[in-house]
Amino acid sequence: MKATILSIGTELLFGQIVNTNTTYLSKQLQLLGIDVLYHFTVGDNEDRMRNAILRSFEETDLIITTGGLGPTQDDATKEIIAEVMNDKLELDQSVLDGIQSFFDRIGREMTENNKKQAYLPSRCEPFYNDVGTAPGFALENDGKIVIALPGPPREMTYMFQKSGLPYLESKTNSVIFYKILRMWGIGESQLETDLLPLIDVQTDPTLATYAKEGECSVRIASKRATLEEAKQAVAEMEANVMNIVGEFVYSDNDEDLQSVTLNALKTEGLKLATAESCTGGLFAKTMTDFAGSSAVLDRGWVTYSNEAKTDMLGVDADIIATKGAVSPEVAAQMATGALSKSNADISISVTGIAGPDGGSEEKPVGLAYIGIATKDGVHTYKYFSNNKGREWNRYNTMIYMCGKLLAQIKSL
Amino acid sequence: MKATILSIGTELLFGQIVNTNTTYLSKQLQLLGIDVLYHFTVGDNEDRMRNAILRSFEETDLIITTGGLGPTQDDATKEIIAEVMNDKLELDQSVLDGIQSFFDRIGREMTENNKKQAYLPSRCEPFYNDVGTAPGFALENDGKIVIALPGPPREMTYMFQKSGLPYLESKTNSVIFYKILRMWGIGESQLETDLLPLIDVQTDPTLATYAKEGECSVRIASKRATLEEAKQAVAEMEANVMNIVGEFVYSDNDEDLQSVTLNALKTEGLKLATAESCTGGLFAKTMTDFAGSSAVLDRGWVTYSNEAKTDMLGVDADIIATKGAVSPEVAAQMATGALSKSNADISISVTGIAGPDGGSEEKPVGLAYIGIATKDGVHTYKYFSNNKGREWNRYNTMIYMCGKLLAQIKSL
Repeated sequence: MKATILSIGTELLFGQIVNTNTTYLSKQLQLLGIDVLYHFTVGDNEDRMRNAILRSFEETDLIITTGGLGPTQDDATKEIIAEVMNDKLELDQSVLDGIQSFFDRIGREMTENNKKQAYLPSRCEPFYNDVGTAPGFALENDGKIVIALPGPPREMTYMFQKSGLPYLESKTNSVIFYKILRMWGIGESQLETDLLPLIDVQTDPTLATYAKEGECSVRIASKRATLEEAKQAVAEMEANVMNIVGEFVYSDNDEDLQSVTLNALKTEGLKLATAESCTGGLFAKTMTDFAGSSAVLDRGWVTYSNEAKTDMLGVDADIIATKGAVSPEVAAQMATGALSKSNADISISVTGIAGPDGGSEEKPVGLAYIGIATKDGVHTYKYFSNNKGREWNRYNTMIYMCGKLLAQIKSL
Repeated sequence: MKATILSIGTELLFGQIVNTNTTYLSKQLQLLGIDVLYHFTVGDNEDRMRNAILRSFEETDLIITTGGLGPTQDDATKEIIAEVMNDKLELDQSVLDGIQSFFDRIGREMTENNKKQAYLPSRCEPFYNDVGTAPGFALENDGKIVIALPGPPREMTYMFQKSGLPYLESKTNSVIFYKILRMWGIGESQLETDLLPLIDVQTDPTLATYAKEGECSVRIASKRATLEEAKQAVAEMEANVMNIVGEFVYSDNDEDLQSVTLNALKTEGLKLATAESCTGGLFAKTMTDFAGSSAVLDRGWVTYSNEAKTDMLGVDADIIATKGAVSPEVAAQMATGALSKSNADISISVTGIAGPDGGSEEKPVGLAYIGIATKDGVHTYKYFSNNKGREWNRYNTMIYMCGKLLAQIKSL
């Protein structure tokens, strides 16, 4: 099956919002084995919308539209789709009831124009919207399919997962199952080289490697007649991949390193203390991004100035003077200081040069030292972030800290 | 002038990257008074590329392409454009020299396929690339214009600003000048209501309001024959806007509240200390996002547990027990504790319920108390973020802290 993703909304053409819907749907369709040939965006203009649909059907069998399903005058997506697909709009009472109960729930009066949303093409399969008011639908005509989804990303993704995906699976006569293994401590080119013997002979399951700041991942996907077969094929390939690069894998469920690290602390019942200089609170902030982090993070220090390092964590001022604030010695004392001044079982520290200024030949921008302390002692690590700017340096240092902390927790 | 933005790249159709180029260019063209009618994305496929260009020219006069200018086999954008525009590719020696010197600079050998990038349509106006290897260009034929830009966002924006913008300005016979006033402490609907007398009679300059998490802004834009006239018109309108909502404006230069707050501290020579509970380091992290923040941030505490609040900042354990950790009393003691335990001139604290759990009828998720202390005493503020999830709550609390801190600095 070949597809076009058609985004409808003048706000997109004005550049007021980034079109993440299209990225999301492209990824989802690819996983279903559906080829996306075009992305198309038009404003709330009936002629251009009609044109875009007619032209897309010249080369593709499936169009997924997002947007233009709302209650206002300029939301004309449904009308145009019904017209092109030789259908008419009819009132769907259960949609109307749903919209009414939505307004009851949020305690507001339903205005008259909201009723417009309850009209759907008569032959369509409705996609009910539990998280907003505008319903979506799938409509077939003459071997062509339109799936219409609302524009707000939260509603769109919810509705695609709940209704669009099962609908498309029923049309493709095959099931895709995939797993994403996420890794830390190996670069993408090394990963690809290591997996080349598997990639070279791949037909199904397919193997694809991806790189992200500081991390990389492998997607193992299989398209088979039944879910059972696809799962079995993925499991066999996963075992092969793990044989080669298993030591680097920290999640077989597409979780990120930050939450895996926090969960490892939680599972082991370890309390954490943080002592940050160059990251300025980013590491503590990251560890508290997730609900339930109060079970893990006891406290943290942001010791940005040299005096703060000495006052707050007892770092020896002479050591700062002789070795420099960015040194393994200072990182070690920050970590042991944080451990002794808290109720934590493990502490992590960082001192580095985030940039853009402050670097030297010996200690360039991007350099950081990390300390990890437990009652058994302290380890320090040197990290260089390949200086691509302050934000990059701080983010990658934080990711490195997660990687080293996770390794330490596993080795305890 | 009417335009289509045509993105070229299979990675977009796979959903591997978000198409931020199109958003950026849409915004830029809107500011130039050029109407964007379509966004279009095709893969590295010659037929579809050719089709997309021909179809776009049926309704629009200008096509801006991004991507497909690289050195590899599948980069065929230039060839197709030359063909459609009745032109031929020719070697541009100065581009070749530029690519050669780029490789010399980064100390790598130039491979043979890089020479492909030095071929440009013979009649084009070349856009030289100082930040990468692939040049862009503008090419006219029969009243139609194609501007070709490289795909990497950093190169694309650089080249658009340096070459594309002046080129288009020369074609539109008018100049746009605009200013963005950013505000805090007023909602978008209130802002729109307040400015309605100005908006209702607007022809030029135009006034547009925008809302962002916790903030809003007004864009004042004028399109005139000369820059002088446009600037004058914007200045007059700005004075009118300032008369009505000036008290809320924190930047007339589109800076964000976080950096304006940091710069205000810097300008006033004030040292800051932070004491965070629910934001877990986010505020300190934000204040250190910018270069030179070491002149401002002295130190920070992340007092996530109740014991940490007492141990680190001297918050009275009885007060926590009777008033609760999320209370104005605790916020005040955190702020005064941070001030007394640092060399700072001003301190800011926060204690709240980030969610998703931990809320009650009396103290719902999204509630936070902020304390700001100086040698003259401490003020506390109650904030409710309208609970839309943990990340939202924490981010908006941080923005509110910036707003209150900035107001306090200005009143000192």
